[in-house]
Amino acid sequence: MDTIEAIKTRRSIRKYGDADVEKEKIDLILDSCRWAPSGHNNQPWRFIVIRDKKVIEEVAKCTIYGKILRSAKVLIAVFLDSSAMYDKKKDTLAMGACIQNMLLAANSLGLGACWQGEILNQKDIVNKILGAPDTLELMAVVTLGYPVEKVGSIRKGVAEIAHMDRYGNKY
Amino acid sequence: MDTIEAIKTRRSIRKYGDADVEKEKIDLILDSCRWAPSGHNNQPWRFIVIRDKKVIEEVAKCTIYGKILRSAKVLIAVFLDSSAMYDKKKDTLAMGACIQNMLLAANSLGLGACWQGEILNQKDIVNKILGAPDTLELMAVVTLGYPVEKVGSIRKGVAEIAHMDRYGNKY
Repeated sequence: MDTIEAIKTRRSIRKYGDADVEKEKIDLILDSCRWAPSGHNNQPWRFIVIRDKKVIEEVAKCTIYGKILRSAKVLIAVFLDSSAMYDKKKDTLAMGACIQNMLLAANSLGLGACWQGEILNQKDIVNKILGAPDTLELMAVVTLGYPVEKVGSIRKGVAEIAHMDRYGNKY
Repeated sequence: MDTIEAIKTRRSIRKYGDADVEKEKIDLILDSCRWAPSGHNNQPWRFIVIRDKKVIEEVAKCTIYGKILRSAKVLIAVFLDSSAMYDKKKDTLAMGACIQNMLLAANSLGLGACWQGEILNQKDIVNKILGAPDTLELMAVVTLGYPVEKVGSIRKGVAEIAHMDRYGNKY
């Protein structure tokens, strides 16, 4: 799929069909993630890919949006490795870039995805379930599957968010 | 350009040619930025697009990598609007996703871009130069132009960063 089309058609998809997600597509998604930019190329991202239904159920219990996780065929838990950090703000930005690669790759492969943030309220419990060390800080869980819903969304216009040369000048 | 190709061929380009960047391409890049995901769809990103040579020079003085900024035809200063924030960590992740859309759109349009982070050491001065209010927190400056260099890069392998179902299980 064309890049700008993938960017503009990406939506948070919360309902998934019965079809499983092919391992080859998960491979492509992870490959896309690792090509995100990071400061000093420190690549602070780590992933746990969850396809085991029992583990999905355990993780689903950690968020009020558990229904979405139970509908998904794959969860990807995304962590910032604090042992690889050099600057918390810049590393967090890099993690966001990495997650966006994941979402765009998924969309371009015909998959639906949803970035789960509410689950961060239970991040320590998620780490325990997954056996992840304290050095890994949960940033998001991304749900994946084949979409069975169409979703609209809206955005502010460019004029509302952009200025030209200096603040206050109309873009 | 195909999405996964754009993701995998994106590089930090630090040298730009004489050709100006068309306004239509900057429009497409900003349009791509606004379609990033954010928690509660709060869209906390704000931009100042800088094409005025005098302003570029003033901003270039704020980083040890000023040479890259002076070579660029366009700078985009990217801010988090604290008045739109709901969760600092999630908003910072969303800003990273937004910046990645910017970089991927630029690459897909044949442009080179470089995510400038060192300049954050002088973020208050950058705000003053640009007349931006204190509510806008500088997240990055992105340099843009037509590339005149080819750049390689390396990444960890997937096996080094991913686990299956639980931590420690080989992906």
